[in-house]
Amino acid sequence: MKRGFGSDNHSGISPEIMEAIASANVEHALAYGDDEYCRRTEQLFQDTFGPQARVYFVFNGTGANVLNIDAMCRSHHAVVCAETAHINVDECGAPQRIVGCRLLTVPTPDGKLTPQLVKTQLHGFGFEHHSQPRAISITQPTELGTLYSLDEIRALANLAHSHNMYLHLDGARLANAAVALGCTFRQMTTDCGVDCLSFGGTKNGLLMGESAVILNPQLDVDLKYRRKQMAQLCSKMRFMAVQFDAYLTTGVWQRNAAHSNHMAQLLHNALLSIPQAKIMYPVQANSVFVKLPNKVWNALLNDYFFYFWDEEQDVVRWMCSFDTTEDDIINLIQALKQRLQEYQA
Amino acid sequence: MKRGFGSDNHSGISPEIMEAIASANVEHALAYGDDEYCRRTEQLFQDTFGPQARVYFVFNGTGANVLNIDAMCRSHHAVVCAETAHINVDECGAPQRIVGCRLLTVPTPDGKLTPQLVKTQLHGFGFEHHSQPRAISITQPTELGTLYSLDEIRALANLAHSHNMYLHLDGARLANAAVALGCTFRQMTTDCGVDCLSFGGTKNGLLMGESAVILNPQLDVDLKYRRKQMAQLCSKMRFMAVQFDAYLTTGVWQRNAAHSNHMAQLLHNALLSIPQAKIMYPVQANSVFVKLPNKVWNALLNDYFFYFWDEEQDVVRWMCSFDTTEDDIINLIQALKQRLQEYQA
Amino acid sequence: MKRGFGSDNHSGISPEIMEAIASANVEHALAYGDDEYCRRTEQLFQDTFGPQARVYFVFNGTGANVLNIDAMCRSHHAVVCAETAHINVDECGAPQRIVGCRLLTVPTPDGKLTPQLVKTQLHGFGFEHHSQPRAISITQPTELGTLYSLDEIRALANLAHSHNMYLHLDGARLANAAVALGCTFRQMTTDCGVDCLSFGGTKNGLLMGESAVILNPQLDVDLKYRRKQMAQLCSKMRFMAVQFDAYLTTGVWQRNAAHSNHMAQLLHNALLSIPQAKIMYPVQANSVFVKLPNKVWNALLNDYFFYFWDEEQDVVRWMCSFDTTEDDIINLIQALKQRLQEYQA
Amino acid sequence: MKRGFGSDNHSGISPEIMEAIASANVEHALAYGDDEYCRRTEQLFQDTFGPQARVYFVFNGTGANVLNIDAMCRSHHAVVCAETAHINVDECGAPQRIVGCRLLTVPTPDGKLTPQLVKTQLHGFGFEHHSQPRAISITQPTELGTLYSLDEIRALANLAHSHNMYLHLDGARLANAAVALGCTFRQMTTDCGVDCLSFGGTKNGLLMGESAVILNPQLDVDLKYRRKQMAQLCSKMRFMAVQFDAYLTTGVWQRNAAHSNHMAQLLHNALLSIPQAKIMYPVQANSVFVKLPNKVWNALLNDYFFYFWDEEQDVVRWMCSFDTTEDDIINLIQALKQRLQEYQA
Repeated sequence: MKRGFGSDNHSGISPEIMEAIASANVEHALAYGDDEYCRRTEQLFQDTFGPQARVYFVFNGTGANVLNIDAMCRSHHAVVCAETAHINVDECGAPQRIVGCRLLTVPTPDGKLTPQLVKTQLHGFGFEHHSQPRAISITQPTELGTLYSLDEIRALANLAHSHNMYLHLDGARLANAAVALGCTFRQMTTDCGVDCLSFGGTKNGLLMGESAVILNPQLDVDLKYRRKQMAQLCSKMRFMAVQFDAYLTTGVWQRNAAHSNHMAQLLHNALLSIPQAKIMYPVQANSVFVKLPNKVWNALLNDYFFYFWDEEQDVVRWMCSFDTTEDDIINLIQALKQRLQEYQA
Repeated sequence: MKRGFGSDNHSGISPEIMEAIASANVEHALAYGDDEYCRRTEQLFQDTFGPQARVYFVFNGTGANVLNIDAMCRSHHAVVCAETAHINVDECGAPQRIVGCRLLTVPTPDGKLTPQLVKTQLHGFGFEHHSQPRAISITQPTELGTLYSLDEIRALANLAHSHNMYLHLDGARLANAAVALGCTFRQMTTDCGVDCLSFGGTKNGLLMGESAVILNPQLDVDLKYRRKQMAQLCSKMRFMAVQFDAYLTTGVWQRNAAHSNHMAQLLHNALLSIPQAKIMYPVQANSVFVKLPNKVWNALLNDYFFYFWDEEQDVVRWMCSFDTTEDDIINLIQALKQRLQEYQA
Repeated sequence: MKRGFGSDNHSGISPEIMEAIASANVEHALAYGDDEYCRRTEQLFQDTFGPQARVYFVFNGTGANVLNIDAMCRSHHAVVCAETAHINVDECGAPQRIVGCRLLTVPTPDGKLTPQLVKTQLHGFGFEHHSQPRAISITQPTELGTLYSLDEIRALANLAHSHNMYLHLDGARLANAAVALGCTFRQMTTDCGVDCLSFGGTKNGLLMGESAVILNPQLDVDLKYRRKQMAQLCSKMRFMAVQFDAYLTTGVWQRNAAHSNHMAQLLHNALLSIPQAKIMYPVQANSVFVKLPNKVWNALLNDYFFYFWDEEQDVVRWMCSFDTTEDDIINLIQALKQRLQEYQA
Repeated sequence: MKRGFGSDNHSGISPEIMEAIASANVEHALAYGDDEYCRRTEQLFQDTFGPQARVYFVFNGTGANVLNIDAMCRSHHAVVCAETAHINVDECGAPQRIVGCRLLTVPTPDGKLTPQLVKTQLHGFGFEHHSQPRAISITQPTELGTLYSLDEIRALANLAHSHNMYLHLDGARLANAAVALGCTFRQMTTDCGVDCLSFGGTKNGLLMGESAVILNPQLDVDLKYRRKQMAQLCSKMRFMAVQFDAYLTTGVWQRNAAHSNHMAQLLHNALLSIPQAKIMYPVQANSVFVKLPNKVWNALLNDYFFYFWDEEQDVVRWMCSFDTTEDDIINLIQALKQRLQEYQA
């Protein structure tokens, strides 16, 4: 396959991560997380997110989101989320099947919930015919590449807590958000009142590494059983733990995220030279959403693979990743310009 | 951690597998299995199990078992299995939660189902108060390290099919069985009438690689959605595919399994020199079950980690793995003899 | 409790129905539906809906809806419905918990889906990250008291079938719709291409009687097990069957529905004399939605019990039932006028 | 259908119960349990079982059992029960589907669990691969018509509580047990430490009336939502409440149960005159299990409907009900003797 902008999980594994895996490949280690590698990485998560943080490694982002929802909700509860949320549109109904709960979705202009938008769903408390609102779930950066400020996260946490609800943060690309906002992971989560988060590394250079991080100790109930029962317990866990270890201690999370964010800015700037291209949302992390005539997209698909985000509106999503190069961008823009010329001819 | 005999997933990654992962770590590949690496490995599975085979890579053995059960059963169905089956005792109720079905368990002397034992559960067909028997699930080698002959597998397949049921084979250690029986994977599965199997590699040298292999095309319905919804779809799938590729093409499955089986024989033979040690089951694959006084076990736990298989009966399980050495066995037997002496003193 | 307009299930049992129950209370009958009473009523359903109709009696409307959804969908499927649908807002997430599927909700002006509205949800087919649209569910009359014409139902059935989907009709108050449209049950369902329906009697004079009626034989797979497993199988089923028997054969469905519809018209007409009262939707069946200042409603709650439909918009729902009298309406209007006067004073 | 001994829910409705339903059929009442009839009956349950008792009316025994299990367990928990328990063999896997938990079944000689039998399942606590034992469930009288003494119940409650577990009692025929033991409902449940029970009336003269009665306030968490979400919330609840009201206040529970127990004794005594008939279990409530040659049973099926309890062992179950007469028994015995003569001829 050609290099491209289809997704940040089309890229491979960062060298630091490969090295970490190799270095742990010695002798024996207890399985299922009962080993020294895992102990050390768990400590690193506490150093990163605060002493009350408890991390549950899982296989993928869906696993992390579902375990978090399962920690917050029973089946008669509901989670308020943006209509565009990954848990709503990209997990084939995993929360419904595994937790059995409802999602209460809210249309948003930019993928971001606000207290005002959330409040439209906060009713029916105590009424047994109505799924009980129990959690708010936000994505940072959002599926549209936009960012919540720390104040915006805090406001949603406060709203949640004032209704005896929890705030979940889907952070599959949290590193990109932290770099963009210039803050620490802890400042963006624990310190804002986030109760639990999905913290991912796969899209930023890991082979495979996702996690549910419980920040509110009230939610840390029976989760080891819950994870096992949903088939998310890794046997040779040391190899997941050391990836996160390298991720957090060698600065790879920051370098990779800073790079992919920077590439997205370059791509954004290059697009400004194409007047027909409409950039749909502020480019705040590592994704760029562009609108162009459908025929142009279809022609460009001969050169590159990418996803239509909104087929009716002719909007595509481009993702930059830790291994995107300036040449990649130059080539993409060049191909696009050529396709545009053909189209206008 | 000291080297030991606690489990075959306490060992690490075979060098051939590490190499395969590294070699796939170039450029971009489509995520979620839509890449050339996966295409090639899928073809390898067809070469291995027959042209009708369809493989669904998943994260762990529980995932493979649950996806297979989900392919065979809806929630009002039941799966007949041995009381000792992994799906019954070691998955924290995953089949119940995710598929919602019943398991009909049968006590066995040696972990093996027989047509006679299965028939005790084949009643209530058509009676709506009774979960409908829909599948038989066997493990090869069994959780007790014993083996089904090809004829025994065929007899269970015939029994299943004569009742409009399916036969599932849990093959987390299928390589050990194939080596022990001197047959191919296909002879032991497809050719015996197995309808679907869980084919694992993690316990035999992979970093992480398990799969549900559908041999009966009737069962291959909507499984890509089912896998995704149960959070078992890997994003950077190429790195799982290439592990299986190396596993099947470089002979590593055979070498590793032959080695661990051989080590178990050595261990078995060494135990014969300890008259107090009672070997519980025929040693046919890579596990050895031994009974000794509880005090001896507790003393030995200072030297080695291992699991009690039956705490009441003072039986422990020892597993050999691809990296077990003759020295490991010598050391273990020596430590055991010393503990026995202390005990008898 | 005072007589009122809170719900049509606040009323009791029609005399014809009580009589039917009493007349079946002789000797013994097989349980769980294996009796002559049930056989006869099943035949009546075939006479009513067409020879391919298969009826499954259940306990309540939620049970009927969930059994129908379960017949159409597995957990990776999705049901398109109006945001106001009972399955979405009034069943505490029963479809999500019991079937595990997603609901794809569409805002509507009047509770009615249209092909155009449904099409906004018909995408992602074949994409495993997306719950697969499998059914359209409509309510007749809608939760807002409006009616689909036969042509409108047919258009939705055609749309469903052209996408390999099914059309479900929630007919908890189907009798009211049939009377209002002047058509038979069959004309409104089977003849329009409806694949399955929830046919209710409780709100129209039965003690308890709801049913899932399968009109498309493809959907009639294993439903007796599915009903039992979701705890919807009645033991002394004869007493449910005879209610439906009397309902369908003595004309009680028609008399009761005609009466409650007529009462709603009287109520509607009486409200026209109150200029401040805004009638929200066309009054086509037995419900009336009225908007008045919140203070008026709160005062009136001293006289009558009723539900706020939309608390923010100060809209309440009034239901007429088979035992509503003209005096009831005169009294209500009188009380309302008095509360209005107090308010304006 | 002929009168018979197939099941105690083949009989109809006690006259006192019909009367109660008719007497509540006046004016309007709030739906879903918010009415004065329900308030009064809830109070009656507290008078009967103790002031901490909270009753949740449901539709059938499966609904009551599943709601109770749901109150005690999450999906990673397990319930220890007898292999013959209704929740295990007669609910088509409802606990697995709706709660998602495991049942740990124990073979018993007479349908009764003992602390010793239960202890065989009490292991794996804290081990995440193992469903966590959380509840013991017993049936009183058992499915085999045998009875637990109060001491035996207390011993199981103590065992449960000493392991941080709960004791559930399935009392679909609790009245028969109370009459047989000469104790009150409270003495047999609350006073023995039972945490929750399924209290049924349908098999003893109600049209339809079952309930989950929570005796341990710790278990009374969110159950109104849980009941609704599993489609067990009745709309015209007053008609269920008044059945229980009449049941508990007019002595009908006692009269009916005493009668059916007495009839079972008569039947038992009459069988003593048939030397070939083997009575399988002590006749302590209203059921009799008899073994005779299969050909005799098949012949008798021409005269009477009844269920084979154990087809392989040629054991059938006969149930007496509140309307069984001495003539019914004389006729049955006469028919049986005639069939025996034919068989021996």
